[in-house]
Amino acid sequence: MSDSETESETESERMRCISCREEYRKRDAGTCKECYEEASETEEELKREIEDLKAKVAFLRFWSPVDHHFSPCFTDVVLVASDDDCGNLAPVPVRAHKAVLVSRSPVFKAMLENEMEESRSGTIKIGDVSYDALRSFVQYLYTAEACLDEQLACDLLVLAEKYQVKHLKAFCEKFMMSKLNWDNAVGNFAFAHQHNAKHLLEAALSLITDNMDKLTKREEYMELVEKDPRLVVEIYEAYLSKQVNTAAPKESSMKL
Amino acid sequence: MSDSETESETESERMRCISCREEYRKRDAGTCKECYEEASETEEELKREIEDLKAKVAFLRFWSPVDHHFSPCFTDVVLVASDDDCGNLAPVPVRAHKAVLVSRSPVFKAMLENEMEESRSGTIKIGDVSYDALRSFVQYLYTAEACLDEQLACDLLVLAEKYQVKHLKAFCEKFMMSKLNWDNAVGNFAFAHQHNAKHLLEAALSLITDNMDKLTKREEYMELVEKDPRLVVEIYEAYLSKQVNTAAPKESSMKL
Repeated sequence: MSDSETESETESERMRCISCREEYRKRDAGTCKECYEEASETEEELKREIEDLKAKVAFLRFWSPVDHHFSPCFTDVVLVASDDDCGNLAPVPVRAHKAVLVSRSPVFKAMLENEMEESRSGTIKIGDVSYDALRSFVQYLYTAEACLDEQLACDLLVLAEKYQVKHLKAFCEKFMMSKLNWDNAVGNFAFAHQHNAKHLLEAALSLITDNMDKLTKREEYMELVEKDPRLVVEIYEAYLSKQVNTAAPKESSMKL
Repeated sequence: MSDSETESETESERMRCISCREEYRKRDAGTCKECYEEASETEEELKREIEDLKAKVAFLRFWSPVDHHFSPCFTDVVLVASDDDCGNLAPVPVRAHKAVLVSRSPVFKAMLENEMEESRSGTIKIGDVSYDALRSFVQYLYTAEACLDEQLACDLLVLAEKYQVKHLKAFCEKFMMSKLNWDNAVGNFAFAHQHNAKHLLEAALSLITDNMDKLTKREEYMELVEKDPRLVVEIYEAYLSKQVNTAAPKESSMKL
């Protein structure tokens, strides 16, 4: 359809959209009525499926033993943040159920089913973690929910990696990707590398290689060269490969 | 738009649907392009949400202690079908976790948290139920899934009602409604009444009152008159109320 054809349309040739009820011209036409009706039905079906799944999640969601609205009951194990800085106070234990830990993490499964020290004593020491992070970790195992900030997302991703809780790891990674920016890109790249967070790594690397001209001035860059030069090499290799793969001239990406 | 207008449309006035790629005429137009694009985005978003929820369900779904792929571990209670007809054999116990039972059913919660007989002995006797139904019941508490047939749906609805597991009750009711037909309508009506299954009751009642001319010849009807005439009165009252509320003449519904 040529533009001149469209422009010659008279008022009577306009149609009214059966969704938004606005008038539109032929060139702005979308679907036929049949497809519109099918799409509406599909949307309704998807919404019903979402309602069903939400109800299922609510049903399956365990009450949390660290939620103050519920008193923990029938717990048979405690988790303790072994590096918790409580001064002279004994660390606060987080009560839990072996059955839940075992069903969520293959590491807890091996630990508790094989009559190891933790199974006999009923106490699992979790190193390098604060009480708050540990509490959120356990809460996630019961509810698949956590109220993240950037620090907590890092802490939980480390725990998720250590105890192989894939669902939590993906949850944290998604959150961290949503917070990714130029200021935290290098830090996130190093962190993702250390904890095997592939999606975050790719996103951070892509952001860095899009801003190579600003990279070498950053403090985090200089620190990384000092601390882990192999990671810096990876950045340069990714940059080189991007340049080879895209037809865009070198100058255009340097100007970004 | 009049029919004569539409019929005068020439070949060039036809449009191509951007969804099914078929040509359509002005009178078969659906939405404008903008609404189509918005709807497509919405659909993609809903699908992503469904994927996320499915992953959450998979994460929260407890392994089942009665699933043979898993060995039950750290269980602290057994359920026994007390009316199980095993001849001289002792009934097979179904192992479970108090914490799971308590989180899914307020009846188990009261039973187990209040140091009643069941809590002390670690054995819960479930009356009037087969081993298979009990096993499916416990499995549902762990997984929110059951492979229903009509008999199992009845059995589980009874258990769900008794132990106040709303999610399971709704699940069974939905299944039974999908299997509702003229042959089982009276039976389902009486069953729904007995077990307080409102949606099933309404659906069965509606089917019955649409077929009043055939009702009195049915064996189940005569049995119901004998056994529980108040339920029969309810059917007649619903029929009367339907006649009053709809403008349709009596004859049309009698002919169905």
